[in-house]
Amino acid sequence: MGSKPDVTLLGHAAAIPQAPEEAVLERVENPHVDTHYLARFTAPEFTSVCPVTGQPDFAHLVIDYVPDAWLVESKSLKLYLTSFRNHGAFHEDCTVTIGKRIADLIAPHYLRIGGYWYPRGGIPIDVFWQVGKCPEDVWLPDQGVAPYRGRG
Amino acid sequence: MGSKPDVTLLGHAAAIPQAPEEAVLERVENPHVDTHYLARFTAPEFTSVCPVTGQPDFAHLVIDYVPDAWLVESKSLKLYLTSFRNHGAFHEDCTVTIGKRIADLIAPHYLRIGGYWYPRGGIPIDVFWQVGKCPEDVWLPDQGVAPYRGRG
Amino acid sequence: MGSKPDVTLLGHAAAIPQAPEEAVLERVENPHVDTHYLARFTAPEFTSVCPVTGQPDFAHLVIDYVPDAWLVESKSLKLYLTSFRNHGAFHEDCTVTIGKRIADLIAPHYLRIGGYWYPRGGIPIDVFWQVGKCPEDVWLPDQGVAPYRGRG
Amino acid sequence: MGSKPDVTLLGHAAAIPQAPEEAVLERVENPHVDTHYLARFTAPEFTSVCPVTGQPDFAHLVIDYVPDAWLVESKSLKLYLTSFRNHGAFHEDCTVTIGKRIADLIAPHYLRIGGYWYPRGGIPIDVFWQVGKCPEDVWLPDQGVAPYRGRG
Amino acid sequence: MGSKPDVTLLGHAAAIPQAPEEAVLERVENPHVDTHYLARFTAPEFTSVCPVTGQPDFAHLVIDYVPDAWLVESKSLKLYLTSFRNHGAFHEDCTVTIGKRIADLIAPHYLRIGGYWYPRGGIPIDVFWQVGKCPEDVWLPDQGVAPYRGRG
Amino acid sequence: MGSKPDVTLLGHAAAIPQAPEEAVLERVENPHVDTHYLARFTAPEFTSVCPVTGQPDFAHLVIDYVPDAWLVESKSLKLYLTSFRNHGAFHEDCTVTIGKRIADLIAPHYLRIGGYWYPRGGIPIDVFWQVGKCPEDVWLPDQGVAPYRGRG
Amino acid sequence: MGSKPDVTLLGHAAAIPQAPEEAVLERVENPHVDTHYLARFTAPEFTSVCPVTGQPDFAHLVIDYVPDAWLVESKSLKLYLTSFRNHGAFHEDCTVTIGKRIADLIAPHYLRIGGYWYPRGGIPIDVFWQVGKCPEDVWLPDQGVAPYRGRG
Amino acid sequence: MGSKPDVTLLGHAAAIPQAPEEAVLERVENPHVDTHYLARFTAPEFTSVCPVTGQPDFAHLVIDYVPDAWLVESKSLKLYLTSFRNHGAFHEDCTVTIGKRIADLIAPHYLRIGGYWYPRGGIPIDVFWQVGKCPEDVWLPDQGVAPYRGRG
Amino acid sequence: MGSKPDVTLLGHAAAIPQAPEEAVLERVENPHVDTHYLARFTAPEFTSVCPVTGQPDFAHLVIDYVPDAWLVESKSLKLYLTSFRNHGAFHEDCTVTIGKRIADLIAPHYLRIGGYWYPRGGIPIDVFWQVGKCPEDVWLPDQGVAPYRGRG
Amino acid sequence: MGSKPDVTLLGHAAAIPQAPEEAVLERVENPHVDTHYLARFTAPEFTSVCPVTGQPDFAHLVIDYVPDAWLVESKSLKLYLTSFRNHGAFHEDCTVTIGKRIADLIAPHYLRIGGYWYPRGGIPIDVFWQVGKCPEDVWLPDQGVAPYRGRG
Ligand SMILES: [Ca+2]
Ligand SMILES: [Ca+2]
Ligand SMILES: [Ca+2]
Ligand SMILES: [Ca+2]
Ligand SMILES: [Ca+2]
Ligand SMILES: [Ca+2]
Ligand SMILES: [Ca+2]
Ligand SMILES: [Ca+2]
Ligand SMILES: [Ca+2]
Ligand SMILES: [Ca+2]
Ligand SMILES: [Ca+2]
Ligand SMILES: [Ca+2]
Ligand SMILES: [Ca+2]
Ligand SMILES: [Ca+2]
Ligand SMILES: [Ca+2]
Ligand SMILES: [Ca+2]
Repeated sequence: MGSKPDVTLLGHAAAIPQAPEEAVLERVENPHVDTHYLARFTAPEFTSVCPVTGQPDFAHLVIDYVPDAWLVESKSLKLYLTSFRNHGAFHEDCTVTIGKRIADLIAPHYLRIGGYWYPRGGIPIDVFWQVGKCPEDVWLPDQGVAPYRGRG
Repeated sequence: MGSKPDVTLLGHAAAIPQAPEEAVLERVENPHVDTHYLARFTAPEFTSVCPVTGQPDFAHLVIDYVPDAWLVESKSLKLYLTSFRNHGAFHEDCTVTIGKRIADLIAPHYLRIGGYWYPRGGIPIDVFWQVGKCPEDVWLPDQGVAPYRGRG
Repeated sequence: MGSKPDVTLLGHAAAIPQAPEEAVLERVENPHVDTHYLARFTAPEFTSVCPVTGQPDFAHLVIDYVPDAWLVESKSLKLYLTSFRNHGAFHEDCTVTIGKRIADLIAPHYLRIGGYWYPRGGIPIDVFWQVGKCPEDVWLPDQGVAPYRGRG
Repeated sequence: MGSKPDVTLLGHAAAIPQAPEEAVLERVENPHVDTHYLARFTAPEFTSVCPVTGQPDFAHLVIDYVPDAWLVESKSLKLYLTSFRNHGAFHEDCTVTIGKRIADLIAPHYLRIGGYWYPRGGIPIDVFWQVGKCPEDVWLPDQGVAPYRGRG
Repeated sequence: MGSKPDVTLLGHAAAIPQAPEEAVLERVENPHVDTHYLARFTAPEFTSVCPVTGQPDFAHLVIDYVPDAWLVESKSLKLYLTSFRNHGAFHEDCTVTIGKRIADLIAPHYLRIGGYWYPRGGIPIDVFWQVGKCPEDVWLPDQGVAPYRGRG
Repeated sequence: MGSKPDVTLLGHAAAIPQAPEEAVLERVENPHVDTHYLARFTAPEFTSVCPVTGQPDFAHLVIDYVPDAWLVESKSLKLYLTSFRNHGAFHEDCTVTIGKRIADLIAPHYLRIGGYWYPRGGIPIDVFWQVGKCPEDVWLPDQGVAPYRGRG
Repeated sequence: MGSKPDVTLLGHAAAIPQAPEEAVLERVENPHVDTHYLARFTAPEFTSVCPVTGQPDFAHLVIDYVPDAWLVESKSLKLYLTSFRNHGAFHEDCTVTIGKRIADLIAPHYLRIGGYWYPRGGIPIDVFWQVGKCPEDVWLPDQGVAPYRGRG
Repeated sequence: MGSKPDVTLLGHAAAIPQAPEEAVLERVENPHVDTHYLARFTAPEFTSVCPVTGQPDFAHLVIDYVPDAWLVESKSLKLYLTSFRNHGAFHEDCTVTIGKRIADLIAPHYLRIGGYWYPRGGIPIDVFWQVGKCPEDVWLPDQGVAPYRGRG
Repeated sequence: MGSKPDVTLLGHAAAIPQAPEEAVLERVENPHVDTHYLARFTAPEFTSVCPVTGQPDFAHLVIDYVPDAWLVESKSLKLYLTSFRNHGAFHEDCTVTIGKRIADLIAPHYLRIGGYWYPRGGIPIDVFWQVGKCPEDVWLPDQGVAPYRGRG
Repeated sequence: MGSKPDVTLLGHAAAIPQAPEEAVLERVENPHVDTHYLARFTAPEFTSVCPVTGQPDFAHLVIDYVPDAWLVESKSLKLYLTSFRNHGAFHEDCTVTIGKRIADLIAPHYLRIGGYWYPRGGIPIDVFWQVGKCPEDVWLPDQGVAPYRGRG
């Protein structure tokens, strides 16, 4: 416990990748591989662009996973999410794609992603995806993001 | 106190006016004309249409006033607000116009209107207008409408 | 400090007055007549009836005052407010009348009443009245009642 | 991922349909048909009219679904909901009818709709309907709409 | 959809019944008898009296049900609830009695009532009752009423 | 329904018991013994003392139960809880002891108690205890007490 | 800065005073006597007894002051407030008395106290008192205590 | 009231400007130039980049102004704000620069901007700027944005 | 009930341990070993340091457990948590390690820990771990910590 | 606008200073010295130690200032605040000292600091200090930190 892990991005300046394909998403060893637990990332600063109109879109993303051998390295996750800044994709597509990319890298027991998108035309979209089966002995709290409510 | 006032709409079925110009906004005598006080109407169900695109717009309106000789009759107010349902006007215009119409009818010591509009294109507009001078001995609480905050 | 005051209602069973005129509103001596302070009563259980339709109305009332020689005796206040249960009056009238009655009894330096009424027809009314001049050395916090917001 | 889909309404001006029957509700291909996920639409700007009195009604609608081959196209959904503006139906009926129409178009694995209506006469109605069976591997958060609470 | 139903109270003035026994609770045909859904009434304006002391009591009631052949007609429900205004019953009794009366009239698949009572002596009572079995394919959100919390 | 029950404390002045052992906890007949329902008491004014330091402790208690033949009489409950004012016990012990005492008196189908204690040393304790098995046909909402969060 | 002050209670066990008159309220030197600032104590655990009925009362107290030569020593303040546990006084009296006692000891430029009492009979009382004149260069935020709101 | 104004962007597709200098900020005639009122824009989707590290920054912006001859055209405002997407500037600089640009265009009686930035390194910055003098007869509500509070 | 337990730290001054290894975590006998219940500790003041950068980290921790023979002694828990002040560990590691240490000491039926960490780089991490199987007759409320939401 | 400023800490790793005296607090040129505006820093992660007991203390700090020639450099501010981690000072002293240090460095038109401390012994302290005179043309929103409220 407490030794410095072998990662390439944490503690250094790093260039921002220009597209999701260019981003290097990294993993570190799970220090508690003998037990199940849940890690949650909350990313309220996600932005991409609409593939039809080119307008920017915004979302508040929450990612939960139960690691097996690997953890997501958090600085690389930040850079990966930042790489969507000029990328065009619909809300449903974008949310699920991010979930799949992370799951492919770390092969978790379980992963889910909630995408809470800002309104366009008055009717915002939320997207909820999960993969794997949450082990029975894991505690999985809800994400608790406030629903959209308009005004008043 | 307690006698039935002379109004034409309260307690009867009334047809919905088809435009603001057709609406009959009524007034009743102020039963406490010897003192200053503030009355507040909260109307979370306002809707009109955009004069350029024809799309419906929605707003949460709050109207405060200090009556002199007259009160606004509340059922006629409801019908008046309902008459904007197919009326085209920008947010700033619509809000101020409503305030002026009421003030013209009842000649209050003071009146203000807050229009809290639902987002269009991600950037909602709020409009705040007042007329007359709030008497120094009146207590004027803020309207307390929650600011727009997007998601998350 | 701490001696038992001379009041007729506190600590006994008391019949509920059938109309505001029958209610006995009592006062007790202000134990700190040498200084200015503010007392606030919050009454979320007020009910009266509409003078036109006979339907029950409901309000959340908040009463603030700066006592001079007298305090309002709280049990008699409760009975007085309860006496409106079958009384017909409009919202504006009812709120101001209660404020005046209390002020007449205790002759405070200052008194205000906020009446926050439940919606009828979707557009609730709030009424704010005050009397006297709040002494400059008094601290008068706002009443903080949440504005009406409909749904969502 | 990221190619422009084949839809008729997004990115163009579109006339507002005058009745639900005239509205064209569109669908687009689900880009992630190999997996289950939930999409949520939140529509705080719904309005229709009472079939008995002709008065406008308002609701905050939330629609959740698990797509199979199709997604709901969001601009056509907005136009479809807007088409109820002059349509008469009771709250229970209106809410369920919308749910059925969407389900008929896209044949989802699962769909539910929550209709949170503004008060009429002081007692608002909420309506909750669902169809299909939510797949076991789907994550279905609650809709989190605040209950009606009157005043105070 | 949209035809005017056959009810006696909606759209007319109606006398307020003087006791629960005198109230006429009405039902209308369920327009979607082919499917299960949940309807919720929220009544924040309930009042009755204490059978021992004669003091008024207040409650916020929430009623959920899954209709079979019948819906509760909402105006008659309002009048029924209003009829408790001078009726004496304990909190537990009153809440359950209302639930039973409605269930007897409409024979729903399922019904529940939550009674959230205002404090007496500093310790408020909430009462939760249900009848029937909620069909497995029904979505039943929690009622979300804020717990009592005293001050601070 | 509505007859006056046979209890010794309600409607009279009653001396405050000086210790839990001296308190008389009373029960009344359950008027709806033919059905299952849940009653909840919320007591935000509980206080006892620390058995080691003698310092006062404070808690917000919430008690849920499903009555069988008996209800808890609420005035005697208030007096029982008040009797802990000078009683020394740890948080865990005190909470469970209260739950057991009530359960012994009324033999409910099910009872649970949540004790939400004020912080001592920055780390407050909550205690959750239950007894019996909640009947399957009972609706048991969560207690919804806000978690402690420090400052900010 | 940082030297240990000369106080008798902090860092030691101290007996709880049995009445306000027995409590020793202490002061420490103000380390920043060259400037004006505001200190606020928040005491959500205050309890005393009703002088008429002997029932316990509870309050959430907030005390703001601008020190001159002295600060209130916080442990002695806690013991002083605890000494009201068996003391009888009305809400208005109790709140003002505490404010005066502290002001007498430390002779502040300015002091105010807000007493937010738990409900008795459904109508809680708040008391607001201040003494001295708040220097113009002091920043005095409001106390932000939530108003009482009953249920729902 | 209601005629279509002469603007170039509303109701058409418009290319997103690549830098603030390229953005065309437009104005429309104030339809109520005879009176003072306040318009508020809320923009929760602002993003720019750090001039030192190149990392994206995010802010929630609120802009209030009292128009003289001109209103800000809202679609051009959206495009102008979007043009900061790849622009480097510190928080203080960026916020004030936006305020100045708008004020230069429309020469309002008064304008203010609040920039509420997302945290970097755990200590977020808010920036508040205003220009002109708010006319005495204008009502200027506070912006009500929640302060940052970390976790818990 | 109420006898003084045999612990070494409560009621005395105690030196702060300089590292987790030096901290003495103590246990006391469970006074209700005949029944299952849940105890919750909430610790909003946790701080450790990043093992790579040496920067301080902060978390709000919530620990739930069902005791068997032993309770955690709360003062020793506070000292144990304080011992992480200069200790380096990643968020996931630190949270799980604390949970394991407590579980090793008291061998509970069940234990879980939620670590809600303050943001670093805009994307905070939450960690949820549990051990043992929560007995079926235990009531386990969710921890209710607000999700991170950025600004606005 | 947008050029890289001359600072020593931003964009580099920097050692954490071991005491406030060792911390280098830096300033950068104000890019908008021609106008008045307010900058706010929110620091929810402050910690120091009690000078009497050696126990850690925690606070949520909010700092507002109106710059003249200089801005506070934010990374150096973070390091300065971190340097209190092992420093002993009372709450009142610590808060005012930080305010003075910043004001000495940047000689602002105006500065204020709010220190919101976590509870010790159940009665938390807040400290509010300001220096200079806020220019009349500056907009100074309140800090909006939630008051402490105990439990329930
Ligand atoms: Ca939950
Ligand atoms: Ca939850
Ligand atoms: Ca206010
Ligand atoms: Ca946000
Ligand atoms: Ca205020
Ligand atoms: Ca709304
Ligand atoms: Ca939930
Ligand atoms: Ca209420
Ligand atoms: Ca729920
Ligand atoms: Ca409380
Ligand atoms: Ca719940
Ligand atoms: Ca916090
Ligand atoms: Ca304030
Ligand atoms: Ca305000
Ligand atoms: Ca829950
Ligand atoms: Ca404010």
